[in-house]
Amino acid sequence: MPLPQPDLPEPAHPEVDSMLSRKFGKEIANYFSGSPLNRVGFLRPDHAFLSQAFKHPSTSFLLFNNLEPLIQSPTALFFANFSDVSSIIGPDPFAKSEEDLIQEYNSEVYYPQIIFLGLDERKHGFVYKERYKGQPFFAVDVTPRKSVTNAAEELIKKMEGRGLEFSKGRMNLSLQAQEATIYAEARHLLDWNARNPFCASCGYPTLSVNAGFKRTCPPKDIAPSISMPNRPPCATRTGVSNLSFPRTDPTVIMAVVSADGQKILLGRQKRWPKYWYSTLAGFLEPAESVEEAVRREVWEESGIYLGRVVIHSTQPWPYPANLMIGAIGQAIPGGEDIHLGHDAELEDAKWFTAEEVREALRVGTSGLGEEAGPEYKEGGLRLPPKTAIAHQLMRAVVDGFVSGAPMM
Amino acid sequence: MPLPQPDLPEPAHPEVDSMLSRKFGKEIANYFSGSPLNRVGFLRPDHAFLSQAFKHPSTSFLLFNNLEPLIQSPTALFFANFSDVSSIIGPDPFAKSEEDLIQEYNSEVYYPQIIFLGLDERKHGFVYKERYKGQPFFAVDVTPRKSVTNAAEELIKKMEGRGLEFSKGRMNLSLQAQEATIYAEARHLLDWNARNPFCASCGYPTLSVNAGFKRTCPPKDIAPSISMPNRPPCATRTGVSNLSFPRTDPTVIMAVVSADGQKILLGRQKRWPKYWYSTLAGFLEPAESVEEAVRREVWEESGIYLGRVVIHSTQPWPYPANLMIGAIGQAIPGGEDIHLGHDAELEDAKWFTAEEVREALRVGTSGLGEEAGPEYKEGGLRLPPKTAIAHQLMRAVVDGFVSGAPMM
Repeated sequence: MPLPQPDLPEPAHPEVDSMLSRKFGKEIANYFSGSPLNRVGFLRPDHAFLSQAFKHPSTSFLLFNNLEPLIQSPTALFFANFSDVSSIIGPDPFAKSEEDLIQEYNSEVYYPQIIFLGLDERKHGFVYKERYKGQPFFAVDVTPRKSVTNAAEELIKKMEGRGLEFSKGRMNLSLQAQEATIYAEARHLLDWNARNPFCASCGYPTLSVNAGFKRTCPPKDIAPSISMPNRPPCATRTGVSNLSFPRTDPTVIMAVVSADGQKILLGRQKRWPKYWYSTLAGFLEPAESVEEAVRREVWEESGIYLGRVVIHSTQPWPYPANLMIGAIGQAIPGGEDIHLGHDAELEDAKWFTAEEVREALRVGTSGLGEEAGPEYKEGGLRLPPKTAIAHQLMRAVVDGFVSGAPMM
Repeated sequence: MPLPQPDLPEPAHPEVDSMLSRKFGKEIANYFSGSPLNRVGFLRPDHAFLSQAFKHPSTSFLLFNNLEPLIQSPTALFFANFSDVSSIIGPDPFAKSEEDLIQEYNSEVYYPQIIFLGLDERKHGFVYKERYKGQPFFAVDVTPRKSVTNAAEELIKKMEGRGLEFSKGRMNLSLQAQEATIYAEARHLLDWNARNPFCASCGYPTLSVNAGFKRTCPPKDIAPSISMPNRPPCATRTGVSNLSFPRTDPTVIMAVVSADGQKILLGRQKRWPKYWYSTLAGFLEPAESVEEAVRREVWEESGIYLGRVVIHSTQPWPYPANLMIGAIGQAIPGGEDIHLGHDAELEDAKWFTAEEVREALRVGTSGLGEEAGPEYKEGGLRLPPKTAIAHQLMRAVVDGFVSGAPMM
C-alpha cells in the first residue's frame, strides 16, 4: 500500500480560502510537507533500478534552470518526458554502477545533476522487483553550462516555445500543495549539490552518486590535466562522514505568549512592508535541544525570558536547506520586558493582544510582496499567509493550543 | 537574570538511580540538553569581548586531545586555567579583529582551534558592557600538531602528571548532566572545524572566525608557497552561505505503538549485545517534515505503516553533529506486518507488550558496553539507559503519552 499522507487540499493557492493545514491525527501538515512520493531511498545505490525508472514511459521530469523550476502557471509545475531531456543527459545516465563511475572519475567531464525524487504509488505502470510500484519522478538540471550549453539552450527555447517558463524568483508559495513538496525536494538537493562541488575535508572535487543524495570524494581523477591521478587520503573515505550527505539546517520558529497567556509577541525586520510582523525565528546551534534554542533565540532577539516550550509542528523550507521546527513558548512572570539591544536582528518587537492577532489572521494576511485582503484597513497588523508555519503557530495560539481553550 | 534552565539533577551518573529528565513545564530535558551557559552568540564577532573573556582570572578552559576531553574522573571534566594553555595559544589569541585576520590570512600558519562556549551567569566575576556577566568557558584543542606539537606534548604530560587524563572513546554518557552539555557543545564545534578545513564551494582552505562558530573563505592567502595570493571568486563570499556555519544533522527517533496502542515496536542492530533492542531511528532527509521522516524511516526499516506522529522531545547528540528529534508514532490498522527487506539496517524488529517494556525499563537497562542491573535475568529484554532519548520515549509510551492513561 502507499505510505499514508496527511490530507492536503488541492488546489492550495493562497488566494483560495482553503485550510492548507489539516489534521493527521493531532498533526499539522504545513506547506512543503505531505509529499505524495515514496522516496525508496534504499534503492538509490541500485543503478539497475534507477536506469529502469529513468527510461519508463510514465516517468516525469522536473526541469530546473539555475534552481528555477519549469512551470506552466504560477500554481502548476510542468513535467517533461524522457525524450525532452535525453539530448542533455544521454540515453541512459544510470547505465554504469557507482563503483565504475568512481573508478573512471574525471573531474573535467560535466554531468548535469539528476535527482531521483521518488515513486508516486497512486499511479500505476512502473514496477521494480514486484514490490516497488508507481510513477517515477526525477529532477534534471538543464542550466546551460559547459558541455551541455548548446543542448540546454535549445531545450529551454523549445519549452518556452510551448508557452512554458522557468519561474522567476521564489515560487512565492503559490504552487498547489503536493507539487510544492516535489519542487522542495528537488530544489533542496540541486542546491546542495551545486554548493558542494569540492570536498570540505581535502579540497578536491567530488562526484554525485546515489541519484543526487550523496557526494563522494573519489580516490583518483583521470582528468588529462591532472599529473598525479592518485589523490592523497581523505577522511571522508574511511567510515561514514556527514560531509557526504545532504545538509539540512534545523531552524526554530516560535509564537511567544505572555506569562498570563493573554498576549502574543511578534517582531519585524526592517525590510518588511509597513505594519507587517511575524513570529521570531533563528537557527538552532550545535548541541542545543530545540527547546533551548527557542529560549535562546527569543532572549537574543527580544530580551524576553521563556519557561515552558512546546513543539507544535515542522515545515521543510528549501531556501536553501532548512527544517523549520515550530514551537509555542511562554514567558516567565517578570521576564516580559522587551530589549532589542542584544543582537540587531529586529527593528521592533511588540506584545499584541489575541484579539489583534485574530483579526489580522482574518483580514491582514498575504504573501510578502502582495497586497493584504479587501477588508484590511491601513495601519492594521499584517501577517504572513497560511502557507507559512508562522501563521499556523499564531492560529494555534489564538485557538487555544496553550490553555486548551481559545484565547479571548 | 540568567536564562531559565530545566532542573537537571546532579550527579547524573547512570548507575545512580536518579531521573535524568525532569519536566520543565511539559518539557522533557534529555541528557546533553539543559546547558548552564548563555552563549551570547552575538558577541562572538567582537574580539574585544573575546579577548577580555579569554584572559579573565575566572575563565575555565576545557582541553581536547583528538576530540577527547580532559577529565578528572569518568563523571567530571577538568577545567584548566589561562596559564595552563597560554603556551599553546599565546598571550592573547583574540588581540586582532576578524577583518585583520582575514586580511593577513596565511594558510600555512597553524592556530589551535579555540571555541567560546558561553558565560555561566550563576558565577560572578567577569562583566562586559555592564549587561553580560558570568564565568567564561572556552574549549581549546591541544592535540600535538604542526607548530604546537612540542608545547602540546608538554602540556599533556603536565596534566597527566597531575593525575588527569584525556577520556578514551565516547564518554559513555557518564558525565554529570550539566558538564555533559558543555562537553557536547565543545565537541560538536571542534569536530565541525576539524572536518571542514577546505571550502566546499571552491576547494581552498578556510579560516575559523567567530570564536569557532563560523568558517570563512578568505579572498587572499599570503602563504609564501602560494604564487598568486588573490584567490578566484567564491560563492560563500557573496551573501550568507550555510557552508560558513556549523552543521547539525536532524535525526528522527521514534517509539512506535500498535494501532490499538497496546504493543511497542523495537528493533535491533547486529552489533548490539544479545537481547538488546531499541527504538528505530534515522536521518531526516532534505525537504521532509519530522512527521514524514518518522513515517518513512519506520516503513523503510520495519515495513510498518504509521498514521499519527507526535513529537515528544529533542536531544543534542555530539557524535558528531546530530539533533535527535524524538517522536511517538502509531501504526494504522492493517499496517502492522513487519518486513525487514526494504533496507538492511536492522537484524530484527519485533512487537513487545507494554508489560515486557515496562519490566525491562526497570531491570534491563544499561550503557551499551555495560552489564544489565542485578535483577536482570538472562534472556530478558535489554534496553538503553536513561541518558538515551530512546529510553525516555519508551518510558513516555508505557506511562501513557499516547492515550493519557498508562498502558496496561
